[in-house]
Order: sequence, then C-alpha cells, then structure tokens
Amino acid sequence: MTSHVFSYIDENRDRMLEDLFAFLRIPSISAQSEHNQDVVAAADFLCAELRELGLSVEKITSEGNPLVYAQTHIDPTKPTILIYGHYDVQPVDPLEQWRHSPFEPVVENGNIYARGASDDKGQVYAHVKAVGAFIRTGTPLPVNVKFIIEGEEEKGGESVYVFTEKNPEKLACDAVLVSDTTLYDEHTPAITFSLRGMCYAEIHVEGPAQDLHSGSFGGTVRNPANALCTIIARLHDEHGRIAIPGFYDDVVELDDAGRAEFERLGYGETELIRDTGVPAAAGEEGRLTLERMWVRPTCDVNGLLAGYTGEGGKTIIPARAMAKVSFRLVPHQDPQKIARALEDFVVTHAPSGVRVRVEILHTAKPVLVPRDSIMMQAGLTALEKGFGHKAVFIGEGGSIPITGTFQQVLQVPVVMLGYGLSTDNIHSPNEKFPLGHFYNGIRTTVAFFEEVARLHTLHR
Amino acid sequence: MTSHVFSYIDENRDRMLEDLFAFLRIPSISAQSEHNQDVVAAADFLCAELRELGLSVEKITSEGNPLVYAQTHIDPTKPTILIYGHYDVQPVDPLEQWRHSPFEPVVENGNIYARGASDDKGQVYAHVKAVGAFIRTGTPLPVNVKFIIEGEEEKGGESVYVFTEKNPEKLACDAVLVSDTTLYDEHTPAITFSLRGMCYAEIHVEGPAQDLHSGSFGGTVRNPANALCTIIARLHDEHGRIAIPGFYDDVVELDDAGRAEFERLGYGETELIRDTGVPAAAGEEGRLTLERMWVRPTCDVNGLLAGYTGEGGKTIIPARAMAKVSFRLVPHQDPQKIARALEDFVVTHAPSGVRVRVEILHTAKPVLVPRDSIMMQAGLTALEKGFGHKAVFIGEGGSIPITGTFQQVLQVPVVMLGYGLSTDNIHSPNEKFPLGHFYNGIRTTVAFFEEVARLHTLHR
Repeated sequence: MTSHVFSYIDENRDRMLEDLFAFLRIPSISAQSEHNQDVVAAADFLCAELRELGLSVEKITSEGNPLVYAQTHIDPTKPTILIYGHYDVQPVDPLEQWRHSPFEPVVENGNIYARGASDDKGQVYAHVKAVGAFIRTGTPLPVNVKFIIEGEEEKGGESVYVFTEKNPEKLACDAVLVSDTTLYDEHTPAITFSLRGMCYAEIHVEGPAQDLHSGSFGGTVRNPANALCTIIARLHDEHGRIAIPGFYDDVVELDDAGRAEFERLGYGETELIRDTGVPAAAGEEGRLTLERMWVRPTCDVNGLLAGYTGEGGKTIIPARAMAKVSFRLVPHQDPQKIARALEDFVVTHAPSGVRVRVEILHTAKPVLVPRDSIMMQAGLTALEKGFGHKAVFIGEGGSIPITGTFQQVLQVPVVMLGYGLSTDNIHSPNEKFPLGHFYNGIRTTVAFFEEVARLHTLHR
Repeated sequence: MTSHVFSYIDENRDRMLEDLFAFLRIPSISAQSEHNQDVVAAADFLCAELRELGLSVEKITSEGNPLVYAQTHIDPTKPTILIYGHYDVQPVDPLEQWRHSPFEPVVENGNIYARGASDDKGQVYAHVKAVGAFIRTGTPLPVNVKFIIEGEEEKGGESVYVFTEKNPEKLACDAVLVSDTTLYDEHTPAITFSLRGMCYAEIHVEGPAQDLHSGSFGGTVRNPANALCTIIARLHDEHGRIAIPGFYDDVVELDDAGRAEFERLGYGETELIRDTGVPAAAGEEGRLTLERMWVRPTCDVNGLLAGYTGEGGKTIIPARAMAKVSFRLVPHQDPQKIARALEDFVVTHAPSGVRVRVEILHTAKPVLVPRDSIMMQAGLTALEKGFGHKAVFIGEGGSIPITGTFQQVLQVPVVMLGYGLSTDNIHSPNEKFPLGHFYNGIRTTVAFFEEVARLHTLHR
C-alpha cells in the first residue's frame, strides 16, 4: 500500500513543487497589516486544494486571520490524526540582504529559497500532499485526518487558541501531528519533545515632549536612548544570568541523564561558530551549548529604535526610545509571572527624568511531551522510513505555543516531526528548505499514518 | 542715515518675508544625498540675490556642496565685516510630528514655521536683507561686507574649513559676524561668547553573520543589541559623569565669577521642565543647570538601530546593532583626543562574542571669544538698537565649529549675534523663527555696520 503511494509521490515531484511554489508566492506576512489580504489569500489557497481533494473544509473567520479547518470522512474504527500548521510567514526585512526576491521561490544547490519555505509553508504543505497522495491513488487513508491551519503564528495571534478551547469535540483526535521544527542534523531526523516558552515585550522610554537639540539641552535632561540602554544592560549580570529577581525560581534543572544525552550529541562552540558566524560563543557560564540552547531561559533584544538612524549625523536628544525584548522560557516558568517581574524590574531600574512603559506583545508556555507513547514511537519509525536514517529525540529552543494548548485541551500526545534544518534561516534573509526534505516529509507523513494504524490495531 | 534704512525695512516687510519663504521652500538637507540638487538650488538662490544687489559673487564648488562667496566694493578706509552663515538644513524626520509641511512655510501666532526658519536660513538671510536695505535706498554701506555662506554645516562637511585655511587674504576682515545662535530669552538679546565643541561617532556591534532565530540560538551567542546597550550604559557612571578614562582631564572648571553670573540668570529645573516637557531634570550631580548646559561636556545617544522595529514581534537575534553617539566638548578638550579615548573605551568594554567598530563622523573644537573688543561692544549696542532691550553675554551648548577656525586663521573676533530663540525647535519637528526677530535681526545688522564704523573711526 505504502509503496504504491510512494511511487505516486516520486512520479509527481515536479507538479507538487510547482504547487508549493504557488503557495510560497503569496506574501502572507501576518505581523504587517498591509499584508492582510495576502494572509487571506494563503488561507483560500489551502481551502481550495483541500476541497478539491474531497475533504469537508471550513474557513473560520472571527476577529483575526482565517483558520483553515478540514477533515476527511470520519471512520470511528480508525485512529484520528489532527494536523496543525501555519500559513503565515515572518516579515522579510532586511530585504536588501536577500539574494532572491523572498516571494519568488527558486531552487538553488538543492534548496528551495523563499520566505516561508521551511517555516512553515513547506512543512505543513508536505502533510497536504501526503493526504493528497492517498486520495489521488485511490488508496484508503489508514487514519482519519483533520487539519487546523492558522494564520497568526508569527504574530502571536489568539484565534487558534480560542477556537481550540471552544471546540474540543471538533478537534478530538488520538494525536496531534505538527511539523514546524527541524531534524537534529542533515543525517539525523528527530522528534522534538521539549519546547521553550516565550514572553515578548516592548519597553518604551519617554523623556522630552519632542526631540531636543543636543547642544541646547545636552547635559540637563536624561536622554531616553541612554536610559533604555541602561535598563537593558541591567537585565543580565556579569555571569550571563538574567538579573530579574525570581526569574529562575521555577526553572527545572537539567538532570544528569539529560546532561549526558546532550553531551553525547556533541554540539559545542565549534559547531555554533560554524552555524552562526559569531566570533565566539557566549551565554550563561558553566552550561553546555545544547543546554543553553534548549533548556535554559534567555533574554534577547530583538529590535532597538531611537532618534535619527539615517545617513550622517543629527545632533538630537530623542524624545523616546523603544526596545523589543523577548524571553525564551523553560519548564516550569510561567510567562505571566515573568511578564509581571519584567514590568517591576523596568520600573525599578528606570533612571530618573524619564517615563517607562512595558507592553507585553505575546506569551507562550514551555512544553514537554512524554516520550513513551505509541504515537511518539510511530513518529520515530515514520521518520526513519521517510528520511532513511534512524531518528532521535531532541529539544528545541523556539516556541510553538499552541502545542501546550493542544496537550491541555485535547489530552493527547503532540508529535513534532521536524522536516526543516536549523540552518534554514527561518526569520532571517534567504530562508530555505532542502528540496529533498519536502519529498521526504511527504513520505514521512504517509508512513506515520500507516504506522499509527498498525500500532493502533496491535494495541486495541 | 540709519533711520532712512530702517524706514525702508518697515515699508518692505511683506516683500522681504515672501523672499524668505522662497528660500525656506528649498529642501536643502545636506545629510541626505537625495537632496543634493536642493542643496545646490539653495546656493543658487543666494548667488542670484547677491548678484542682483551688485555684489561680486562666486559659487565655489570643489568636492562638497557649493560655498557662496560675495563681496561689496572694498574701500580700504572702511572696516571689513565677513558674514558667515549656512544655507543647508537638518533632516525633517519624524515627519509625522510636523503640524505643517516642513518646506511649506507659514506664519502662525507670530512665528514662521519651516525647517531652517531659525537654523540658519532666517538668520543668515536677515544679513542679506540688511545689506540690500542700504543698497536699495542708495545709502553708502558704512563698512565693506564679505559673505561666506556654506552648505555642509548640518553634516559636518569640510569645504568651508579647507577654503578658509587656503584663502586667509580673500577672507581678511576686522570681524566675523555670525548669526546662528539665540537671544537669552524673548526680552534679552545676547552675544554668545562660548560654544561647546563636538565629537560625533557611530558605534557598530556585529555578531552572527546574519539575523538568527532567537529560539534556535538564543542563550548560546552574544546578542549585538544587548552588547551595544551594555557599552552605552557604561559610558556614564552613577553620578551622571562620563566614565571614559581621562575624559575630564582638560576641562576648565567654571570660576566663582562665572558661577555667580549663571546663578543670576536664574534658569533652573522649573524653566527646563517648561521648555522641554521632561518629568525631571537630570545630568551631572552638583552642577547648575546653565553650567551643565553651557560649560560642561556631555555624552548623548542621538540614534539607535537594531533588528526588527516594525509592527508586532519578530523573534530574531539581530546580526548587528548601531548607535550614533555624540559628545559636546568644552574648553580645552581636544576632540581628536576624545575620539581616541572613545575608541579605546568601546574596545575595552565590548563583551565577548561580538566585534565592535567606532566610526568618527565629525569633530569640532570648543570656542571662547574674548568679551573686551570694540567689535563685541558694537554687537551689544546693535542688539539693543535692533531688539529694543539691553543685551547680555551668554554661553551656548551647541557647536559652530567654523568659528574656531575663523579665530585661528583670521585672528579677529567672531561676533555671534543671535536672532533665534532656544525654543525654536531647531533639529526637531515644527522648527520656527519669531517673525519679529527676522525684522529685528535685519535692523540689528544695519545698526552693527553703523556702530562698527563709528567705533572704528573713534579708535583709529
């Protein structure tokens, strides 16, 4: 059965790639309101394709961007897989650093280059094509499939959370399948079993009513940009630890077994320098690289803006300064508690002569998925069949906040089969997705359905 | 004689204002290369008017923006006044905060609103109109007049410096007249006798080869934006002093007499809050407000830029971060020495895991003009005649670097008669120039010529 579907995938490589390119050409940037229509166009694209495959499709629009919901005919004797993904993408600036236009996909050196290629259009679309491969070959699907694909992941929107909490019966399933992560490395497919959480904030510092001439008033007033830098500098101590009181209170320390596993994977400073181009590693003292990357919390400035930033010099004291600052959180940190602690910290450490304000843009809880379910075992087998190498369990430094909600509301395992690579430049210029991974991903999804059905029958 | 010229000025108020508006409509922003043609247009505007008045005019172009040089017929029995000013203006962003378009001048509540109205088009143009008032009424000019008007003041260009150093004979004079400063307050005209100098730098911090996903790599690399904030935070100590080693070594302390004068002027925290809108004053501890404003050095961030600064959140570690940082310097600090000390400081305080680079954009020496010359006395008298109130000597926190070069090369007093107000929003949105000051300024220049000629005859 699988071999028949696999053959269909091989024979239709070009057509499937063409379809993916059409999906990638839609500039569905959710964080920028001028792209609202493009976001809706991406949802419509998915609805049309899923409808054509014979699924019953709903485009659900409340306040935010549409949710694409679809399901095959539900056979109560089969297990049900809910597939989650997102069709929105990150902004593209700095645009001048892209070698190709971000929304004109090309294949170069075996990679698909386009914004969204890896995060998450290429990955979620592999699932769509896997379901299509069964249907187009007339092969009965071994599982019931439901899709919930959202358009607010990159801006931390609420729609999918609200919908999940209000519709647990509609989304009822035996496992959630999510592909929005990566292999461990090119030759080692992986299931991500832990994810960091998130607290994303803007810090605003305001001083004079408007920009002042730095000659006329310099030395007499607090400069909001200098003040902002002081606040941010104080967020870390000299050992690379975050200096907000109580920040580490709920952090679970890595146990010796975990530390041994991370050491065995062997990713260290050399690999980090190779992957990022930094002159040296940095971060919390006395911790392994993978530990800092996967299971330690962080604080990063994502953006800074104040005053005059164009060509040449302008001698002003800016009226205001802004920083986007985000924290990656780990089990069992509470993002709301961190948000409040940050607000207190900023107010406490604000120098005199300025006004400060903290705005929380979004939050996400950290996630842990138990590794011992049959669904997770099916995932390992499927990855090995799809990619041809033995799969491992890994942690992930990023956040996929909806996974926590799925676990809590649906009470099933969330199986994160990653089809991307950590070097895919997601959120950066020149985002890519290995062309082979698109096809291996489709095969993995097919194999996952088969394996889930097989284990389901065995364990019934 | 004066009364005849004064009458002409009164009778031609509207026409003179129309001419000023035409000058203000030219968006001659020197710091932005897209305005290169506008900068040349402003020079051409002045050349045409001075030529029409019968002066011999040269538009001098070497590498930078044109210098406008003009002179009346030189009578060796009369004293010669060299008038300096600049026709270029500051950038206009943030544009959305202007109530009127910056290059469509309007009069509102007795003020002319436009970019350059006070700094320096309105002031330098008062001199042009003063010379014109003599010529149009057929009144012999009591002094020889030379003009040197440049177009690179707001971007720290070199042209006028190079020209002055190469042409001391051409610019030879008995005094330089500069109007690019302010009255002490609305009712107290003033000659500025001390100016702060300048060292303007960009600090660049670079880390990863490109922006990284903050989930994938957060905690393992130094974030260039956080690192930049750390460096900037360290530039000041907790007492508001600049922490660069040796920074204060050459600073001349204010003497008791100077302190008493500043105290008498009575400008303190209340006035500062009224003029700027800050919630409280700040700066170096234990110093008077006017002392910090006029005779103490400063360090201000003029601009900050890193990562994503648009709407919503983007979870990146930016590849680089940049700050524009400028220092106001006082006698006898050496801008070159400060530049080197800053470079050392940034390298020393850069955290590990990033590369840093300091670029010096421009520098200017601080200036002191002796108060006891007949030219300075003529200035006080002229201001009183032009503005109807007794004039005082004041310091100024800003820099007019060419005045130092004039003093050094031409060995004459530089008389700074300020026609603007410190509340004119120069370098900010909604720049203005009191309409009455335009006419009072023209009258002051006329009176200055008369008074210089009178004292010159007396002292010969």
